[in-house]
Amino acid sequence: MNYYSTQITNLIEELRHLPGIGSKSAQRLAFHIINMPQEHVDHLAEVLVTARKKVRYCSVCCTLTDTEICPICASTKRDHSTIMVVEHTKDLAAYEKTGQYNGVYHVLQGTLVPSMGKGPDEIRFKELEKRLDQDDPRIKEVILATNSSLDGEATAMFITKKIKPRGIKITRIASGVPIGGELEYIDEVTLSRALDRRIEL
Amino acid sequence: MNYYSTQITNLIEELRHLPGIGSKSAQRLAFHIINMPQEHVDHLAEVLVTARKKVRYCSVCCTLTDTEICPICASTKRDHSTIMVVEHTKDLAAYEKTGQYNGVYHVLQGTLVPSMGKGPDEIRFKELEKRLDQDDPRIKEVILATNSSLDGEATAMFITKKIKPRGIKITRIASGVPIGGELEYIDEVTLSRALDRRIEL
Repeated sequence: MNYYSTQITNLIEELRHLPGIGSKSAQRLAFHIINMPQEHVDHLAEVLVTARKKVRYCSVCCTLTDTEICPICASTKRDHSTIMVVEHTKDLAAYEKTGQYNGVYHVLQGTLVPSMGKGPDEIRFKELEKRLDQDDPRIKEVILATNSSLDGEATAMFITKKIKPRGIKITRIASGVPIGGELEYIDEVTLSRALDRRIEL
Repeated sequence: MNYYSTQITNLIEELRHLPGIGSKSAQRLAFHIINMPQEHVDHLAEVLVTARKKVRYCSVCCTLTDTEICPICASTKRDHSTIMVVEHTKDLAAYEKTGQYNGVYHVLQGTLVPSMGKGPDEIRFKELEKRLDQDDPRIKEVILATNSSLDGEATAMFITKKIKPRGIKITRIASGVPIGGELEYIDEVTLSRALDRRIEL
């Protein structure tokens, strides 16, 4: 990459390490940044640093937030007796966008990855157990909304086994054919599951 | 986007304004950045700001560089009697990657865009004329390597018309380059062949 001067090369290299950014995209982004007004670049840099500095895990649900307790956990309008367990903050955001869920969340910040020996201590599962121990207000239902991938399923099964003895209602979001999806493009596993879990009309 | 806290929302919004970054990519990048070690984020931010601050146009060929004169223009090993005219610094980089060109460059930093009234004053054409006026060392050939897009062709034709009276040899890279293709995405072999088969205009 020595056809660019040092600063440009450094910038391209830095950008290339970000996820989903290949060397062509890094190059395009670099030239875009170099052509931005200086104050915009300063602002972008500041936002990066501030976000990293201020953002932490909510002390209740472990989502990424910039307050001690996230807005959802702090809200009195939410139903604190229902906890939806998701893998990441972006999954929480996906469910918030539906506008159909009024409970609270628990964000695991990952899944078990049995194939790579990633166990329960590497996700925010202890924090979920702590919430159930405190049990205030009485938690009525835990909805498992991890992805329907191999690791997501393994995590859901693990959590079920661990907390079932508490006698709390545990549910799993339905898996099947997505709304608007065309059957011919859907994988066999999904189609099989949709058939197995068919409901009577 | 109010399902994220302020700092995360700010970060996603900033990233979403970069070219080629949609809202999903912005979200993924944001969470990646938030999970990076603080010192890496500080370093990334610093590289952005420094690159923008230090990078300027080479006073000879107008490429983006961080020195008054770019390494290629400053090199005594390059053939300064041949100037390849390209649209952008990334096109220069594409030709440097071939290892087949030993002349120098002139980077227009754009093209004429007749359809939008973008004229010769908005690209670095005057700087090219100035180089030809100074004529030191005797410039023997100007190779036009603008893209083979409509605007690139228009720019090549404009430059030919303007500098032809000087009696300098003017060539155009061969159209082995696919029509509508952009130099930065074309493989080295094709670029080398296009250079070898350049035709005199």
